[in-house]
Amino acid sequence: MHIPTLEDIHHAHKIVQKYAHQTPVLRNKSLDKEVAGQVHLKCENFQKVGAFKFRGASNAIFSLSDEEAQKGVATHSSGNHAQAVALAGQMRGIPAYIVMPENAPNVKVEAVKGYGARITFCEATLKAREDTLENVVKETGASFIHPYNDPRIIAGQGTAALELLDQQPDLDIILAPVGGGGLLSGTAIAASPTDIKIIGVEPEEADDAFRSFKTGTLIPLDHTETIADGLRTSLGELTFACIREHVDGIVTVSEQEIKKAMRFVWERTKIIIEASSAVPVAALLNQKIDVTEKKVGVILSGGNVDLDNLPWN
Amino acid sequence: MHIPTLEDIHHAHKIVQKYAHQTPVLRNKSLDKEVAGQVHLKCENFQKVGAFKFRGASNAIFSLSDEEAQKGVATHSSGNHAQAVALAGQMRGIPAYIVMPENAPNVKVEAVKGYGARITFCEATLKAREDTLENVVKETGASFIHPYNDPRIIAGQGTAALELLDQQPDLDIILAPVGGGGLLSGTAIAASPTDIKIIGVEPEEADDAFRSFKTGTLIPLDHTETIADGLRTSLGELTFACIREHVDGIVTVSEQEIKKAMRFVWERTKIIIEASSAVPVAALLNQKIDVTEKKVGVILSGGNVDLDNLPWN
Repeated sequence: MHIPTLEDIHHAHKIVQKYAHQTPVLRNKSLDKEVAGQVHLKCENFQKVGAFKFRGASNAIFSLSDEEAQKGVATHSSGNHAQAVALAGQMRGIPAYIVMPENAPNVKVEAVKGYGARITFCEATLKAREDTLENVVKETGASFIHPYNDPRIIAGQGTAALELLDQQPDLDIILAPVGGGGLLSGTAIAASPTDIKIIGVEPEEADDAFRSFKTGTLIPLDHTETIADGLRTSLGELTFACIREHVDGIVTVSEQEIKKAMRFVWERTKIIIEASSAVPVAALLNQKIDVTEKKVGVILSGGNVDLDNLPWN
Repeated sequence: MHIPTLEDIHHAHKIVQKYAHQTPVLRNKSLDKEVAGQVHLKCENFQKVGAFKFRGASNAIFSLSDEEAQKGVATHSSGNHAQAVALAGQMRGIPAYIVMPENAPNVKVEAVKGYGARITFCEATLKAREDTLENVVKETGASFIHPYNDPRIIAGQGTAALELLDQQPDLDIILAPVGGGGLLSGTAIAASPTDIKIIGVEPEEADDAFRSFKTGTLIPLDHTETIADGLRTSLGELTFACIREHVDGIVTVSEQEIKKAMRFVWERTKIIIEASSAVPVAALLNQKIDVTEKKVGVILSGGNVDLDNLPWN
């Protein structure tokens, strides 16, 4: 098991910066006032495909040898990772095979198709997804691009924090949401040479990282329900190891707190963030972490929402 | 009748830049692809109070002599201008008197109160608003800050285009929405020394500027219905004169086109714009103006929306 190093993230950044946007860091007076500190929002909602996931996917896919690459890449996902793999595959000019559950929202299916990926539908269970993916990989020889439990993915996701540290060096704390743990792991490794505290924030309804971190034992959750749909997955062995080594703490927030934080950001900052992005903001707005007079970086993970199904409607 | 000059806008900018944000100019690949040109979005949705209106209000209010100012400022508005006058008044440390119709949405009333303004409610007719304002002005000696038909307001609004020209000098066309005409007038004057074409865009449902421009006669509309609520007002004499002198054309868009353009911007750019901002974008997406291989600036007027009442729900 290779825990990525800061050097891996620097290496990833050389690749990722050729394909991804350097996203802006925004501030907002209402937010600062509300938390009595300085909040710096790293806007991965403005990233390609609307989420940080493109960083990891582009690093993984452009790290493949030509021989590996020509057989294509494959993954199973109904979310942002699917679009990220599809777009990075398209940019490298290789086939991308995406396994999606048959009940995936049409808008997500269309987005993946729009990037030229080949979709295989399967039943909406984790087992069906994994079995179908295994078949696709066997048939095509494509490389499986795991959504988080992969050093190239973790290193790629870490480039968001690397940029943030360049754009705003004197931070006291950085917050990132935790689902599978790729973003939090990469963030923590990127900041490892500094004194900056790294805190993961997780929905109470999907608190496997919180429990695993507290007990020192990986405790995946079978079934989770949270509006932060990007955070329903559990940590993997590699991300858990990264988090144990580099992260300072994990806190949780309620569904109600997530919804309110999401709406607060929409109304005050005029940017669209998805519920997963609102999770660390909710931790700030509800004093789960004291940031009085501190400088806080927040990684806003993405901005892909279904405008016909907003949580306050 | 004093038509403001470029010099007036430069003078306004010296004042406005002390109080307002220099808003960013954003680009988006999907939008560029859709219109086969380069679109540069001047994001006044990120301006203070969430709209360009703060530029005009701050210029007008900080241009008052101390003697005038101490008696306060007054206006009637249920929209962005009310908040702009309230905030600029608060920043100057003088009373702001806002006349609002008794059916104004609570969220707008609260926002105005939040900036410390004194609200007088009246019946929801234009006559009641004007009469009530007249009384307030008589009683207090406050200066009336007109929402658009005032050279200081027009010069203030023109600072958005002045900044845009500095941020992105080589534009071929600039589009701005037209309601009362303050923003369009200021934009056209700011660009007057250049060859850039200035086009106003208006909802079909509130097409007084289109008709007035075409016939050369000011034709106000009594009653208009459009989801672009910031554009329901008609041109004034001064803004009409500015527009006749400096604007190259006015085009109109349907309600359906506005709604679709608004949703397009939300989904693709991840920024929140109000319906009035979507009006010029709608003109681009529906080929009302040919911008093939051209560089187009678009003034996004604001981002204040009622998240409980989105046009697609």
